[in-house]
Amino acid sequence: MRTLSNEVAAVAGKKVTVCGWIHKKRLLGGLNFINIRDRKGLIQVLVEDKQEVEKLRGLQIGTVVCATGNVVADERAPGGAELHDVSIEVIVPVEEAPPVEIDKPLDHKPDNLDTLFEYRPIGLRNLQETAILKIQSTVKDEVRKSLISQDFIEFNSPKLLPGATEGGAEVFKLDYFGKEATLAQSAQFYKQIMVGVFERAFEINPTYRAELSATTRHMTEFIHIDAEAGFVNFDELMEIMSKIVNDAVAAAWKNYEVELKRWNATPPKLKEIFPKLTLQEVHEKFSKANGVDTTGEKDLRPEEEKWICEWSKKNLDCEAIFITDWPASEAKFYHKISEEDKNIAIRCDLLFRGVEIATGSMRENNYSVLVEQLNKIGADVNNPGFKYYLMAFKYGLPPHGGFGMGLERLVQKIIGLNNVKEASAFPRDINRLAP
Amino acid sequence: MRTLSNEVAAVAGKKVTVCGWIHKKRLLGGLNFINIRDRKGLIQVLVEDKQEVEKLRGLQIGTVVCATGNVVADERAPGGAELHDVSIEVIVPVEEAPPVEIDKPLDHKPDNLDTLFEYRPIGLRNLQETAILKIQSTVKDEVRKSLISQDFIEFNSPKLLPGATEGGAEVFKLDYFGKEATLAQSAQFYKQIMVGVFERAFEINPTYRAELSATTRHMTEFIHIDAEAGFVNFDELMEIMSKIVNDAVAAAWKNYEVELKRWNATPPKLKEIFPKLTLQEVHEKFSKANGVDTTGEKDLRPEEEKWICEWSKKNLDCEAIFITDWPASEAKFYHKISEEDKNIAIRCDLLFRGVEIATGSMRENNYSVLVEQLNKIGADVNNPGFKYYLMAFKYGLPPHGGFGMGLERLVQKIIGLNNVKEASAFPRDINRLAP
Repeated sequence: MRTLSNEVAAVAGKKVTVCGWIHKKRLLGGLNFINIRDRKGLIQVLVEDKQEVEKLRGLQIGTVVCATGNVVADERAPGGAELHDVSIEVIVPVEEAPPVEIDKPLDHKPDNLDTLFEYRPIGLRNLQETAILKIQSTVKDEVRKSLISQDFIEFNSPKLLPGATEGGAEVFKLDYFGKEATLAQSAQFYKQIMVGVFERAFEINPTYRAELSATTRHMTEFIHIDAEAGFVNFDELMEIMSKIVNDAVAAAWKNYEVELKRWNATPPKLKEIFPKLTLQEVHEKFSKANGVDTTGEKDLRPEEEKWICEWSKKNLDCEAIFITDWPASEAKFYHKISEEDKNIAIRCDLLFRGVEIATGSMRENNYSVLVEQLNKIGADVNNPGFKYYLMAFKYGLPPHGGFGMGLERLVQKIIGLNNVKEASAFPRDINRLAP
Repeated sequence: MRTLSNEVAAVAGKKVTVCGWIHKKRLLGGLNFINIRDRKGLIQVLVEDKQEVEKLRGLQIGTVVCATGNVVADERAPGGAELHDVSIEVIVPVEEAPPVEIDKPLDHKPDNLDTLFEYRPIGLRNLQETAILKIQSTVKDEVRKSLISQDFIEFNSPKLLPGATEGGAEVFKLDYFGKEATLAQSAQFYKQIMVGVFERAFEINPTYRAELSATTRHMTEFIHIDAEAGFVNFDELMEIMSKIVNDAVAAAWKNYEVELKRWNATPPKLKEIFPKLTLQEVHEKFSKANGVDTTGEKDLRPEEEKWICEWSKKNLDCEAIFITDWPASEAKFYHKISEEDKNIAIRCDLLFRGVEIATGSMRENNYSVLVEQLNKIGADVNNPGFKYYLMAFKYGLPPHGGFGMGLERLVQKIIGLNNVKEASAFPRDINRLAP
């Protein structure tokens, strides 16, 4: 009968068996101990008997063992207890030292990321790495709960699509029984179709972009939080987005405060509803403060994204901020254009700690206008990629809006990691297709 | 201020505005009413004023409206109340009748599935279709909760892989910046790697199989529930599998009893832990009862799967059953072979209501044996597809087992649908890549 590491302290004086991996090992001759890691944490095991010490001779970190011994309360030990007078059973011996150390504090540097990913299957056993993935898991779960609490229903759209519809070169193509298929770059069309079914719909699934450059912000495969809501206005959309980020941050800190502090993370300052600035306001503030002129530019420079988040933290007490009023000339065909100002698309980019983690917008919901906008960009409305999408509008879609948010970027910024890939278990970019 | 359909009955006597889609419409001259559908359900609206009736003239199902009127309690109306003395605001007029009827009971027949999927964006608005997707959503959520309650942690493995590793022709290939990549057929290798990290790991993500034939059981893209647990034995593995199916079935019936009954579904008879029979026992029972001889066959015939589920329901009072003791000659290289009988792989197929919904097995966890088994099938252990997988074993993986379960098949069988594609929002097969 196996006892889990977190159950040991409660049975001081009893004899228990703990099974797991040797996570740390000190065989000094005098005081010999090992730390055993299982799914609940670590337990310290004193190995006194010479015969037992001998069993461990030459065996390395990662060796799978069961240790049977007496529970002795000890405040200094992880979990508040350790095992004494143990007998060891070696389940799986590991004879070669692992290529990466898993019991040391980590310092992810840009120049060691290749090593980090090369030994990922072992490196993830470092509790600090494990913590990143646990936080990712909690954030994903909480985003889901947050959306469900706001009446969104989860669905799954296909990632195998008949053709590239959102345009751009960043699309993976594959042979589909002799026809060409593409991998979904977002759930855009499907979540809009689902507004006609659920009114509020979301999915959290992998998404694919053939990004031609390896940056700290992009991966070719990532987990996309895709949500869409009918009968909402722009402010309500931004409220929904604010709420899920607030909920996710709160859950991460509630469940993993110790782990976050080990990464030197700080709880972000966040308002219940994040403040907003127009694109031009950001350009003006940035230009004035930095002696450059970005006014009139149609996008934000990466340094502007960083700067305005710092500015918002300092002046608005919020490390997340919406940027609104984007130029209509840069809008996607499904963006809603402002009726007051035809040059403005009703879109909001959500910046958090220096990076865009989500893009939202109100959508054009008038069938004729959509067809017109598709014709304008030269799209074939009878193409299967557009035909079924348009069907939903022809038979009635209300005013609606939605957003796409990158799970790994959100996790990256909660923890304070330099590169989005560090927040992914097995990241993909132009140079990396394994492990 | 908008009132949702389920909030109306509570404010009898008050004036409210309800917004949604016209779901049903009867303009008979005498008694005119419409049903409005929103995310919470239906509300009946009496349209008395001639001018208001005129607004609706020529408008079709799907038209988006807001109706403002007085709430009158009426037990016969859906939701227990209806709106009287209304004024209508047409938000989005629909002028063409939808290609499929969305307010009629459904009868999915094999010969009308093409029509069903051709008009999917509209057909899903039929509340009976919507119910399938809501049940899918609940089942997915409950499986997740069930696994989390059993100490599994969710992760996400990449679906873009360096090469086909599990073998077979059923793999999609794509161009990855000039190199060949494949789409994941399962999370097999990654969930085993994650045993070394989380001890118990799962993911629920899309998975791809280039199935060359269009059957009632296969899709080229489906949602795979992939779970793996360290330090479990075969019986414990089957207990975990039994629990998640029981939990999912209970949640579906708890949340959607009315909808399930509309599909003529019945609650499945299920034991807490499903019974098991060996493959040969099934062959013998089937052969004896049906006057054929399948004994010695290395797989189950589809008719045997159906028959043994009926047999189990009748004789063991359980509509789900594990089939164990599969021939080692048919085993995958990662299956654990029984130490007592080298001809037997420690694998269990879970049959539910006539179809295999999951396959589980204990895994070979000895590094040297795995390398040997890979060499035997001619696999290159230095191929990136295998190299990182083997790394996890070299540095210690305990005895472990896991399973893959098809979400859509589970939903199909809970509801009693004929074809797995009916349980998918936008199914994919060899002939279908849209909508």
